[in-house]
Amino acid sequence: MRDFLPVDVRKREYVIGIIKQVYESYGYEPLETPAVENIETLMGKYGEEGNQLVFKILKRGEKLAQSASFSSSERDESRSLNDLADLALRYDLTVPLARVVADRRNELPKFFKRYQIQPVWRADRPARGRFREFYQCDVDAIGSSSVIVEAEIITAASDILDRLGFDDFVVRINHRQLLSQMASDAGISNENEAFVALDKLDKIGVEGVKNDLLSRGIDGATAGKFLSSVTGDVTFPELNRVIALCNSPRVKIDPSLARGLSYYTGTIMEINVPDIAGSLGGGGRYDGLIGMFGKEQIPACGFSLGLERILVVMDERGMFPPEIAESRAADVMVTIWNDETIPDSLRLADDLRKQNLRVLVYPEADKLGKQVKYADSTGVPFVCLLGPDEIENGVAKLKNMRTGEETTGPAVEIFPVIARSR
Amino acid sequence: MRDFLPVDVRKREYVIGIIKQVYESYGYEPLETPAVENIETLMGKYGEEGNQLVFKILKRGEKLAQSASFSSSERDESRSLNDLADLALRYDLTVPLARVVADRRNELPKFFKRYQIQPVWRADRPARGRFREFYQCDVDAIGSSSVIVEAEIITAASDILDRLGFDDFVVRINHRQLLSQMASDAGISNENEAFVALDKLDKIGVEGVKNDLLSRGIDGATAGKFLSSVTGDVTFPELNRVIALCNSPRVKIDPSLARGLSYYTGTIMEINVPDIAGSLGGGGRYDGLIGMFGKEQIPACGFSLGLERILVVMDERGMFPPEIAESRAADVMVTIWNDETIPDSLRLADDLRKQNLRVLVYPEADKLGKQVKYADSTGVPFVCLLGPDEIENGVAKLKNMRTGEETTGPAVEIFPVIARSR
Repeated sequence: MRDFLPVDVRKREYVIGIIKQVYESYGYEPLETPAVENIETLMGKYGEEGNQLVFKILKRGEKLAQSASFSSSERDESRSLNDLADLALRYDLTVPLARVVADRRNELPKFFKRYQIQPVWRADRPARGRFREFYQCDVDAIGSSSVIVEAEIITAASDILDRLGFDDFVVRINHRQLLSQMASDAGISNENEAFVALDKLDKIGVEGVKNDLLSRGIDGATAGKFLSSVTGDVTFPELNRVIALCNSPRVKIDPSLARGLSYYTGTIMEINVPDIAGSLGGGGRYDGLIGMFGKEQIPACGFSLGLERILVVMDERGMFPPEIAESRAADVMVTIWNDETIPDSLRLADDLRKQNLRVLVYPEADKLGKQVKYADSTGVPFVCLLGPDEIENGVAKLKNMRTGEETTGPAVEIFPVIARSR
Repeated sequence: MRDFLPVDVRKREYVIGIIKQVYESYGYEPLETPAVENIETLMGKYGEEGNQLVFKILKRGEKLAQSASFSSSERDESRSLNDLADLALRYDLTVPLARVVADRRNELPKFFKRYQIQPVWRADRPARGRFREFYQCDVDAIGSSSVIVEAEIITAASDILDRLGFDDFVVRINHRQLLSQMASDAGISNENEAFVALDKLDKIGVEGVKNDLLSRGIDGATAGKFLSSVTGDVTFPELNRVIALCNSPRVKIDPSLARGLSYYTGTIMEINVPDIAGSLGGGGRYDGLIGMFGKEQIPACGFSLGLERILVVMDERGMFPPEIAESRAADVMVTIWNDETIPDSLRLADDLRKQNLRVLVYPEADKLGKQVKYADSTGVPFVCLLGPDEIENGVAKLKNMRTGEETTGPAVEIFPVIARSR
């Protein structure tokens, strides 16, 4: 897990700000759920591997003592370990959404469109570019099975990437019914096994997927038939409707797109750029999940943008605007002449802030050279020098740290110089 | 722990937005740390009670199996329980900051001013208005023992409350050395016990604190002497300097202000409003904490604003601006006439978004009355009706949901009507 220093936070907030703004423009509303869920809410939703990767929280106080004494007289070890935890860290944003919708159906609009940008935690072995705490940026539309939902989700995600400056992404779409049909036509009985194998196509290629299918007990002829159909040309009415409504050359049917999760029931989608393996985001329709948490079966479709991956690509390509990439603590630093002039310096700083400038005050009456050197080390573009002469004359001396140029004048004259340079 | 529905998130983000903006204007920079810390980082920093309230995360896989088999052959039960957890949830934002500063001193400016707005978790018994997950909004200045630091921290927190609309808050300040002097003058040997008791003055009154002191083995005469000095008039040079630099009638010395935490070493401060027990925020100077994580002793001073409490008071007093308090999903909803006109409705929605409007599209070709009724239920102020006649004539019909008034015209004419009403 990582600490984010100021420049990292600013880059993340820049991207998150655009994501929020675009999703708000489509009428998606913000939702936040707690980091911690009851352990039963999460268990069994992400497959056996997922169960292992959920961070589990130790019971506390008496509850723990009871479980511990219970478990020591208990033979079944895995049972006793589960008794130690009652809570768990959020593993994704979809299951908490499904819980909220099932619990609070009456407080939410019939067509609930929500976005949610929060961290999730997975007990993966740390690997390059993978973290155990990472942000997901999810958008979901609940309550309608109309194809308008898919079109809006794809268009909104595309708008975000456009706004961030991506000009080479492709949106691949497929449909779970089409995949099922192709699996069944090829003679595959356990389609989920086949989809999990096919989901690795990007990483391991056609031969790799074929071997994976063989290792799952699917014979060579069946695997070959399935692979030739998913890598061929197909058409599917609902996908054609999605493409027509998106009205963008970026959106393409790809019958080999599988997506790993078993809960998808309709259109699935994924966004890729050429220079990075894996996706910038993916999603799909899942009309069965919310029913697992309540009596009512409610249709839903969602998409998750991969914030960490977007940030990596933007960094590598130098896509951040300069004011974000070279972010600084402040627009100007005010110096301190001596202990007696501290109030004057604080007053000047206050005046500068009233002009919407971000202002550092050097905290000590050090030698002036030391103060200016410190300003330089922070990258602040201007220093305001305030000595007894300036105070007496009601002026300040402004030093441009890039050019070395100095201007002396009343505050009203120096404000615009700083403001202009931002 | 709570789910935050859209109107809650918007209120929180409004307050957090102002906090960020003001702290940025003082040159504080954003820092974020992971929700999960190594358990040793947190243990022993918050007292015995704090240790109990830290959420601990169960070890995983092999590590857990090893600890479990080890613990079953182990007599010391509390030892074996600790062996089950290796990670823990963040309990406050100060200890993670101290860890970051000790670890990454060379990457940070000499005078590191940071703000951090993130949730923390405490395994408290849930009580009215107390939550096990809650946000802290911390600001800290590292690296200087100058009184300018205290003055800026107080002034910035006051600016935030001003900007939020609070006009009746008081900033009380005191100094740990002054408290120590008064405790020692009264004949108290364990001053921390006395400060913990005194910290309850707001809640239990002078008599309550006296009884608490007695129960801690301090005799009546000593307790009486201590209490009469902390409730009397005092002066202290460093506090006078803070007050002079803050230059605000809100800032007052209160010799009875104690603050519970044992790590404070200098000025302590707390902000209160009359109609709520407890504080809107508090903090102080802690010159010894960072040294616990590294070789170097580094002076520091910080302040934590209580977001949840600020939100409660603002709600009770109706302090949110109407656009936040009555927040809506969108500025306008576009209807769908039938399946064939969906592309026209999506295009109109797209044009409206280009005018910086937030636009809902009704997702289905339901009866028009049903669509307008749905718009009404969401509180959206305008509906754009688009039928075959409007499409043919290149216009749209705009319905004002409050007045019922309808206007028909080309898109360029209806944009400003919606924009003006925001």
